[in-house]
Amino acid sequence: MRQSKLFTKTRKEAPADEIAKNAELLTRAGFINKQMAGVYALLPLGLRVMKKIENIIREEMNTIGSQEISMTTLQDPEVWKKTDRWSDEAVDVWFKTKLKNDTELGLGCTHEEPITKMLTEHLSSYRDLPFSVYQIQTKFRNEPRAKSGILRGREFLMKDMYSFCSDEDSHNEFYEKSKIAYKNVFQRLGIGHLTYITFASGGMFSKYSHEFQTICPVGEDTIYLDEEKGIAVNKEVFDDEVLSSLGLDKSKMVEHKAIEVGNIFTLGKKYSEPLGLTFKNESSEDLSVFMGCYGIGIGRLMGTVVEALSDDKGIIWPESIAPFKFHLLALGESENVKKEANSLYDLLLSKGVEVFFDDREAMSAGEKFADSDLIGIPYRIVVSERSLKEGGFELKKRTEEKGKIVSQEELLKII
Amino acid sequence: MRQSKLFTKTRKEAPADEIAKNAELLTRAGFINKQMAGVYALLPLGLRVMKKIENIIREEMNTIGSQEISMTTLQDPEVWKKTDRWSDEAVDVWFKTKLKNDTELGLGCTHEEPITKMLTEHLSSYRDLPFSVYQIQTKFRNEPRAKSGILRGREFLMKDMYSFCSDEDSHNEFYEKSKIAYKNVFQRLGIGHLTYITFASGGMFSKYSHEFQTICPVGEDTIYLDEEKGIAVNKEVFDDEVLSSLGLDKSKMVEHKAIEVGNIFTLGKKYSEPLGLTFKNESSEDLSVFMGCYGIGIGRLMGTVVEALSDDKGIIWPESIAPFKFHLLALGESENVKKEANSLYDLLLSKGVEVFFDDREAMSAGEKFADSDLIGIPYRIVVSERSLKEGGFELKKRTEEKGKIVSQEELLKII
Repeated sequence: MRQSKLFTKTRKEAPADEIAKNAELLTRAGFINKQMAGVYALLPLGLRVMKKIENIIREEMNTIGSQEISMTTLQDPEVWKKTDRWSDEAVDVWFKTKLKNDTELGLGCTHEEPITKMLTEHLSSYRDLPFSVYQIQTKFRNEPRAKSGILRGREFLMKDMYSFCSDEDSHNEFYEKSKIAYKNVFQRLGIGHLTYITFASGGMFSKYSHEFQTICPVGEDTIYLDEEKGIAVNKEVFDDEVLSSLGLDKSKMVEHKAIEVGNIFTLGKKYSEPLGLTFKNESSEDLSVFMGCYGIGIGRLMGTVVEALSDDKGIIWPESIAPFKFHLLALGESENVKKEANSLYDLLLSKGVEVFFDDREAMSAGEKFADSDLIGIPYRIVVSERSLKEGGFELKKRTEEKGKIVSQEELLKII
Repeated sequence: MRQSKLFTKTRKEAPADEIAKNAELLTRAGFINKQMAGVYALLPLGLRVMKKIENIIREEMNTIGSQEISMTTLQDPEVWKKTDRWSDEAVDVWFKTKLKNDTELGLGCTHEEPITKMLTEHLSSYRDLPFSVYQIQTKFRNEPRAKSGILRGREFLMKDMYSFCSDEDSHNEFYEKSKIAYKNVFQRLGIGHLTYITFASGGMFSKYSHEFQTICPVGEDTIYLDEEKGIAVNKEVFDDEVLSSLGLDKSKMVEHKAIEVGNIFTLGKKYSEPLGLTFKNESSEDLSVFMGCYGIGIGRLMGTVVEALSDDKGIIWPESIAPFKFHLLALGESENVKKEANSLYDLLLSKGVEVFFDDREAMSAGEKFADSDLIGIPYRIVVSERSLKEGGFELKKRTEEKGKIVSQEELLKII
């Protein structure tokens, strides 16, 4: 894409009311636009990143056989009353609205209830189990405060998956598969080295749930990490009994602030029983389905990558989710530079390479470099009078201080 | 995909409360699930169709240079008060909700205001113009009645595009381009032959707007069509003066019921003036931007295809948006049939062919044929003892009465 055609502009200063680094950088670089606290629109560069994150998650969920669906935002109270989760006392983040005839509706903050109910129309036999469904869908949560940019939104994109098994053993098998899928997601997103599986409080059907926590100073959670074993424990369950049950040594556990980027949870029959999601076993007995749920905050993940990997010049996108792989900069007003840069741009496009071409006129080299660092595309290619004199283009990684001159042939090899 | 793994089941009867054919067929075939009147979840087959429709629209909008963004559902009243569209008297389909601190918010029913406001942060010079943005995003409209299935939803997916030009001439140029893009969309979706550009009432800045109307008995609109010229006029502006200004002959105009699947509209300065979206011209004067808007109801399109192209056995998907291209049916319990069907399935997958494999056990040929007709995949391939004896597989189009036996080689050629 030609940068001269992109309607967004970078800006030097963050909006005065923005205190979170992720929102500050993403706003200055033109990825997002604040609509109100905790509610951000995605501009073209931001949408490109979000779609790449979505696709990585989609691939990993498909790999473990999960089936994609898309539930709705508008929620019928009757379904939620059956599990006692309609009242504001039970779920304190409901947004509620009304039909013209005054019927109260909710905006989906999670989807256990409607998915469980929907499945009562499709599930009948043990032969239908196990299976799982997931969606990549917008959630609404009426957070009292929303000052963390896209780390804690009132409206945000989430991947939520739900599994349905005949018994706990079958559930545990899928639960373990989901852990691997989750690890793959965070690895592919470039934050695998900072993200740890973390024991957290469970529920009626399981002693623990598991969170995926990314170490980051702005995280809202506190975890204790045994780095050698790669296992962490959330502060909420960090006591001697838990440590001994997990075979962990308190003296090796180091305290960190962390962002919860994912969680997986054994639900058991918590929702299937009140909503009547049953199946017939081999002896034609009706049994309640054993469920699990598995969340990843997609907007939060994007914010976490920005918080964890940026530097004082701007964002540093991992290649897997960068809006483009290459940022091609044409410097100066020389016709020769313009010609060479345009021809390289066309060549890269013809090779199917994702390239963002800074072809803007009347802009200094310093301004173009600053914008490029702020936007954070992994590789920068500079075409200038000097680079051409030296035999080609200057190629530099966003994470490196200095670039090197490469010829067109060398560049194509690297690509 | 193996049908035995798909969690949805077809059903013989439609839900008792469903009176619209589109929702009836889509529910029976397992594409959608009703959450409440006008609010439908997408199940795996439905989501596949929806994503294909989205991608066709995305490609056509990208082709005319539009840039994709994604605005939010939650709406700040302040922005809408500036254009006098916050009150229920002005816009009678608002869903409204509240923050914890009692601040009232809206759920987006359209996005002229927030997009115009967002652009005030990015647009400054005539050199930035013209450009356009679009989104594929969920809209919420508090319809008093919602009995038409997915033809008129309270929550539905829409493509809305907005153009920004320095003057009316530049606007008209983009407006004409958008007409071609829209025609391409409907053509590619298989309803081009039923869809006509239709003159409808304009606004302050233009005598007419243009609708794209698909002829269909369940349509809510009435249009008068000159089939020879391929031009229609909406009943709302159908009078002698309009006909003469368009050079149309009343005696050739035939009345039809039709579904409005898209519309394009000249907005002029209606939103840019109150929201202060200006640019500096060559003489550094501040001028208001000249805008247009361009909508396509994506959920409605899916419903229109079902209404317009189904028969008494079920849905008939055009190849471009079918959930799969081929429906492979293994009939009977013979091990040889199972082996041959499985090996054909693997072969088709290895060729990158989209195939839905009915590998379900203990199900009669009649049941499998009925399901296949209901689901509406364009090509059916049957593997049975008989087909194998006759030298291969039976290939039949969904729209044809009889199939023919083809060998594996012949089949691969057709693919």
